[in-house]
Order: sequence, then structure tokens, then C-alpha cells
Amino acid sequence: MDITSRYNDKISQYFEQMAPKGEPASLYEPINYLLMLGGKRIRPAMVLMSCELFEKDTDKALPAAYALEVFHNFTLMHDDIMDKATIRRGFPTVHEKYDLNTAILSGDAMLIYSYQILCGYEPAMAHKILKSFNKMAMELCEGQRLDMDFETSNIVSIDGYLKMIAFKTSVLLASAMEVGGIIGGGGESDLKHLYEFGKNIGIAFQIQDDLLDAFGDEKKVGKQPGGDIIQNKKTYLFLKAKELADPGQLEKLLFYYNVEPHDQHTKIKDVKHIFTKHLKFEFKIILRKM
Amino acid sequence: MDITSRYNDKISQYFEQMAPKGEPASLYEPINYLLMLGGKRIRPAMVLMSCELFEKDTDKALPAAYALEVFHNFTLMHDDIMDKATIRRGFPTVHEKYDLNTAILSGDAMLIYSYQILCGYEPAMAHKILKSFNKMAMELCEGQRLDMDFETSNIVSIDGYLKMIAFKTSVLLASAMEVGGIIGGGGESDLKHLYEFGKNIGIAFQIQDDLLDAFGDEKKVGKQPGGDIIQNKKTYLFLKAKELADPGQLEKLLFYYNVEPHDQHTKIKDVKHIFTKHLKFEFKIILRKM
Repeated sequence: MDITSRYNDKISQYFEQMAPKGEPASLYEPINYLLMLGGKRIRPAMVLMSCELFEKDTDKALPAAYALEVFHNFTLMHDDIMDKATIRRGFPTVHEKYDLNTAILSGDAMLIYSYQILCGYEPAMAHKILKSFNKMAMELCEGQRLDMDFETSNIVSIDGYLKMIAFKTSVLLASAMEVGGIIGGGGESDLKHLYEFGKNIGIAFQIQDDLLDAFGDEKKVGKQPGGDIIQNKKTYLFLKAKELADPGQLEKLLFYYNVEPHDQHTKIKDVKHIFTKHLKFEFKIILRKM
Repeated sequence: MDITSRYNDKISQYFEQMAPKGEPASLYEPINYLLMLGGKRIRPAMVLMSCELFEKDTDKALPAAYALEVFHNFTLMHDDIMDKATIRRGFPTVHEKYDLNTAILSGDAMLIYSYQILCGYEPAMAHKILKSFNKMAMELCEGQRLDMDFETSNIVSIDGYLKMIAFKTSVLLASAMEVGGIIGGGGESDLKHLYEFGKNIGIAFQIQDDLLDAFGDEKKVGKQPGGDIIQNKKTYLFLKAKELADPGQLEKLLFYYNVEPHDQHTKIKDVKHIFTKHLKFEFKIILRKM
């Protein structure tokens, strides 16, 4: 998404200036640690980009851009605990570097801080922004919960999966577009379209991520392919293959997704074979580009 | 606080009606589990009481009263994880009954839900309420963090302790009074006084709690006395005694607060003896009433 890079300087400068300060340092330091690990800053760029559609001066969208990035990092801090992740952006996660209680409490403070920033807008504007933000934040919790529930469920539907990734990932991008539009002064119909655009780009991004995990070029993607297959993750690829597979392949697929075999290489090869057999028509355009 | 009981019916009825519903149930059920365990509902009563000072019809303060109780229960859900508490109001805590991830995520959802309820007020009113709420919520995180830091610190001052209990407990009562006043239509000066009243009653309540833990009647208090002493908690009693003790007593006190002796009975007796020797003037009125 190179289109977003032209906002980088503006965003970095504002973020540095707004870094939360306060006492005790043991509460605020872990917040700044995570925020300073970087990341692509896609969400703030989306807020500014969306604002710019209606209003040349995007400075007044900076607080909202920052608030959404703080919120995003709050979800990372808590999700990393839930996922038992030890590494984030190449560095130890907060609960690894500090401890569990620090990651819970500093995460809570980040969520509150994101609200505090949004409440800096004048009342009518803040009210509109918060309506979008609250709905998104609650859906994001629902999405994370669905994801956790799916791990142990054998009856995940494609619709269920799409709802999960929409809530877990896409509604934040959707809200970023909507909030930028609100600040820029977009009309009701524009805001709806911006929201849908953000939501759909998020879903597409997640499915692309699923595809890259199985079929991506190791050098380009930066990780060993097949991670989702090893972890038996019920991705779109798996669910669609399950739907289209013949009885023999279905049996093989379900067998592989219920075991953790010693030889991961054969598992990945076999599962990918089933995936490509059934998915090549649906995804041939995307696959060709990878 | 019998003065609050006259709001009980109104509060219970509204709380039942507003119980959060949604999918997946695995996110919402733990929230309702904790909210339904009851509690004294002091904070919602304070919101209604404060509103009533300016406005006979307290119905419009009910959403804020509920939001503050939801927020309070969010802090309990996360604090119970941090404190490794297994029992809350006689029932298993959420992380005990469900699991850690559930308590983190459903807690997050409660915090968001409390904002969602407050945003139901019209923009100007919501903005005023949120200003008080945000400040309080952040201070509460700071207070919880200070409390955690004090556990392992040997240089806690009385001022530091008072700040900690003010942030951890009192600012929520202060904000409850202030928010009730805002909704009722109180003036700036009234709101300041209400805030201070709530804050000071919170501090007094916490110090009374420290005293009851050491000197309360077991039958009335409902728990074995001396719990704080066993846990080496740096309460107001301990800090004040440390300040006033002669060298011999100081040595004894510090010895006891650095060990977990097998014979807790002698420890409690000896520490209480040092407490009473030095604190009887300061607390004689309170102690006499216990």
C-alpha cells in the first residue's frame, strides 16, 4: 500500500509529540514500548486519506488517526497474551518483556487513552466519531471471541469465518475510513461507502494473507509457508476446500486437521495439493500474481 | 450507607433491562455473570443521589449510573486476574469459572460497553460526562499500577499511599458524584464540591477498611482479622506506625513485614500492639465506634 507512505512523516512527527506521559512510569513505559515498535501505520494513513477526500487540510484528522493506532495497539497487547505470542515486530511482546499484569493494565490504559484523544474533538464531532468507534470496538471483541471459539469448533461455516475476519480485522479499517470522512465533512452516503470500502479491503487483505501463508514466496513473505496448515487453522482456504473436496480428499483433509504429524512437510504438500485442485479457478488471478 | 438503599429497586430494574445481549454468548455471558453477582451498588446510588440534588426526576441519570457500575465491574474482572483472586462476592471469579482469556476479553468488552452507554447522552452532555469519566478511568489505572508497585517497594510514603488509594478507589466515587451533578444540571462550583466529597468519602472508607481489617469485630466484618498484616500490606496503619515507632519497635515491625512466620497469631498480636500504641490518639474516635 505505497499510496499511504506520503503521510508517513506527518504521522511519525505527531505520534512522537503525543506519546503518553505520566506517572507511574511502570504504567506508561510499556505503552510507549509497543507504540514505538512501529508497524505500517496503515490505519492512521487511512484516516488521513479519507479525510483528504473532502478537506485539503488533514491536520485536524491527526488526533483521530493517532487514537485509532493506539486502539489497534491496545488490541495487539491483549491479543498477544491470549495467543501466547512471544514476538511482535521482531521484539518481545509486552507480557514477555514485562509480565502478564503489566500487559493487561497498560492495555486497559491504552484503550482509555484512545477514548481520551477522541474526546478532544468538539462535542458534536466527538459524538459522531465515538458512535462509529464504539460499534467497531465492540465488534472487534466479538471477532476475537469468535476466533477463539473457532479454534476448538469443528462446525465453522464460510459465512461464520467471513464474519469473524470482518469483525476481527476489517471493521477497524472500515471505521478508520468512516472517521476520516466524518472529520473531513463527508455526507451520510459518502460515509457509508467509505465504511464499506474499508471493510471489504480488510476482508480481501485477510484472505490474501491466508493465501500467502500457503502459497506465498518465502523470500517475499518473510516466513516459512504453511504455518496455518501446521496450526490446523480453519482459514478460508481450508473451509472452501472442505466444501468442494470429494469424499476421499475430505477424509484426508480432516485427518490432517486433527493431528500434528511428525512429518509436517508431507502434511503441507498434501493439503496444498487438495487446496490447489479445488481453488485454482476461484483464486487463479490472485495466485498468478503471487 | 443506608441512605442509598431507597434507590435499590430503581437500579435493579434498570440493570436487568440493560443487561448486555449479543453474539457470541461466550463473550457476553461472563459479563452478565459478574454483573449479576450483585454488590452494594454504591456507585450508581451516588450518581442518582447527586443528580437528585438539582433535579427531582433522576431517571435520566440511570444510564450513567449503570455505565459506572459496568465500569466498576470491568475493573473487578481485570483486578481479580492481577490479584490472583479466586472468589468474588462468594462465587468463583471470572478467570476461575471460565479462563484467563475470557476474563481479559470480556473485561475489555465491559469497558467499551460503559463508553457506549455514556455516548447515549446528547453530544454536549456526553462530552462533559466523558471528560470526568476519562480522567477517572486513567487515574484508576495509575492507582492500580501504584498498588502493584508498592507490593515490592520498601519506600512507600504516607502521601504516596494516600494518592494510591485515592486513585484506586476514590476517584470513581468522586466521578460518580460529579457525573450525577452534571446530569442534574449543577453549576461548576457545585460539581467541584461534589467531586471532592466523593473523593474524601472514598479515602475515609479505605482507611476505615484498613482499620477494620486489623481491629474490626470478626462477626460484624465477616472475615478473620489481621489479613492485611499476614499479607504484609503497607496500609495507612503500617505506614503511620512506622513513622511513629521507636527504634526497637521499628525493628520488630520491619522484621515482621519481611517474613511470613509460621505462627501468624503472634505476628498479628505483636503488630497490632505496635499499631495501638501509636495510633490510639489519632484514631480513638473511630476505634471507639468499632
